[in-house]
Amino acid sequence: MAISTDNDAAVYLAAAAKEVDAALERWLPCAEAVPGRIHESMRWSALAPGKRLRPALLLAAGESCGAERATLLPAAVALELIHAFSLVHDDLPAMDDDDLRRGLPTNHVRFGEATAILAGDALACLAFELIARETPQQDLVAQLIVILGRATGTQGMIGGQVLDLLAEGTPADLVVVREIHLRKTAALIRASCEMAAVCARADAATSFALAQYGERIGLAFQITDDLLDLTATAEQVGKRTRKDLERGKLTWPGVVGIEAARNDATRLVQEAVQIIAPHDPQGVLRSLAQYITGRNH
Amino acid sequence: MAISTDNDAAVYLAAAAKEVDAALERWLPCAEAVPGRIHESMRWSALAPGKRLRPALLLAAGESCGAERATLLPAAVALELIHAFSLVHDDLPAMDDDDLRRGLPTNHVRFGEATAILAGDALACLAFELIARETPQQDLVAQLIVILGRATGTQGMIGGQVLDLLAEGTPADLVVVREIHLRKTAALIRASCEMAAVCARADAATSFALAQYGERIGLAFQITDDLLDLTATAEQVGKRTRKDLERGKLTWPGVVGIEAARNDATRLVQEAVQIIAPHDPQGVLRSLAQYITGRNH
Repeated sequence: MAISTDNDAAVYLAAAAKEVDAALERWLPCAEAVPGRIHESMRWSALAPGKRLRPALLLAAGESCGAERATLLPAAVALELIHAFSLVHDDLPAMDDDDLRRGLPTNHVRFGEATAILAGDALACLAFELIARETPQQDLVAQLIVILGRATGTQGMIGGQVLDLLAEGTPADLVVVREIHLRKTAALIRASCEMAAVCARADAATSFALAQYGERIGLAFQITDDLLDLTATAEQVGKRTRKDLERGKLTWPGVVGIEAARNDATRLVQEAVQIIAPHDPQGVLRSLAQYITGRNH
Repeated sequence: MAISTDNDAAVYLAAAAKEVDAALERWLPCAEAVPGRIHESMRWSALAPGKRLRPALLLAAGESCGAERATLLPAAVALELIHAFSLVHDDLPAMDDDDLRRGLPTNHVRFGEATAILAGDALACLAFELIARETPQQDLVAQLIVILGRATGTQGMIGGQVLDLLAEGTPADLVVVREIHLRKTAALIRASCEMAAVCARADAATSFALAQYGERIGLAFQITDDLLDLTATAEQVGKRTRKDLERGKLTWPGVVGIEAARNDATRLVQEAVQIIAPHDPQGVLRSLAQYITGRNH
């Protein structure tokens, strides 16, 4: 579908979220299967209301270069499972110690710490298993899993969380914040675009453009998140706000100021849009990129 | 190599462990790579002295049906990474709260809880990534990952840990203990034999026999572990003993008594040996099975 306005992007995201939720519902173990408690806990976090940004981007990027929906869907769901796993573990008392997420009690508040740790573990393992089990073209599986594994591991999201925890209370430094954001957030968003390219068997130029686009909107997304933590209310974002400041977290606006951070996010989106233009015939990726920095939740 | 005595099994295990340790050393991120702290933590647990039973079984089972060493090695290392991840998370204060493992301080005692949680996560993700990245025959990757994912997830090891925690302090019940042991321990040991069959492109009869063999020695291994917890010293096993009793854990000897548990382990090994005999020309799998219940650590 051709979309050009923020509203169109919202409509596209809502439709993608609905499709991803239906697939999550189907592929997550049902709550009645033994042991029910961990399945309830996995479903609590993976099916909680969310933007489903990573899978939506994968679907949009994949379609823009001609991949089949059926090829994209297992990878899309896997990305959301990895994202859900990371939220469950990041919220634990030993990490960010959060009690509210997506407007609901966090997993360990609802199910206890032991179950939350194990549910996060199981969500991560299920992500890899799903790609291997459900991807119709089996020859794509190895590439998809290498990209997802790298983006999730210590060179990606998990490494970013470590750097984030280590940096608490250290002096403002843009190089450090950039590295944290690149790993903690941009790596998985970039991976969603790279996995889309694999699903579409895209040529090297398209794959490269998608990776660069993904990295830039990933950074812009996290800068916007930092800004929302400073300026939005908990009702708007569904989690406690101003907590970065309380904890002495390094944030982009904390280093460069609110206005400069807004400008940086806008510039990154402009670059992303420019890079992706030749590979985005219907303008969906442009629209999604612009929507990401305009959001208020 | 043809082996027939306990001593030969010990020699085989030691040689396999050496090979697996060299591969772990090569494939684990080096401690100098950023963020060094989590890499140190991963290496602390994955390289700690251990029997490397799961990878050794995979190598032995794979060789017995003609698989190449190079095909087996990534899967072998992946099994050990999943095992190490499970130990790190099971030892956490919110779970079994252990401070000694393999004769060393547990990961969270040494590196703190946050790093231990993230190191466990990273070890699990690396397991799947390694199979996808390093298996020379890429068409085997999807099958290997489905087996490993199932054995690790809520139908396997993680589900077993949930059942184990839920069963603490409940009345003795052999059906429940069997289900816990099947999932918590036998699933991954069975998977090591099933993955070996995939690597060897074994026929259905061989694959089935290997799976049944693996499940039985997995159960026998855990029964022996329960017995050692009751009867061995911490110096022998490298972790605190008699803790199952203190915590009201369901154990096999706790339900049927020490002598009956010894007999059950022996019977399971006999069944395993009988099942595998037609597919074990050199007797390696028989020897390993017998060694497992005879061990004192």
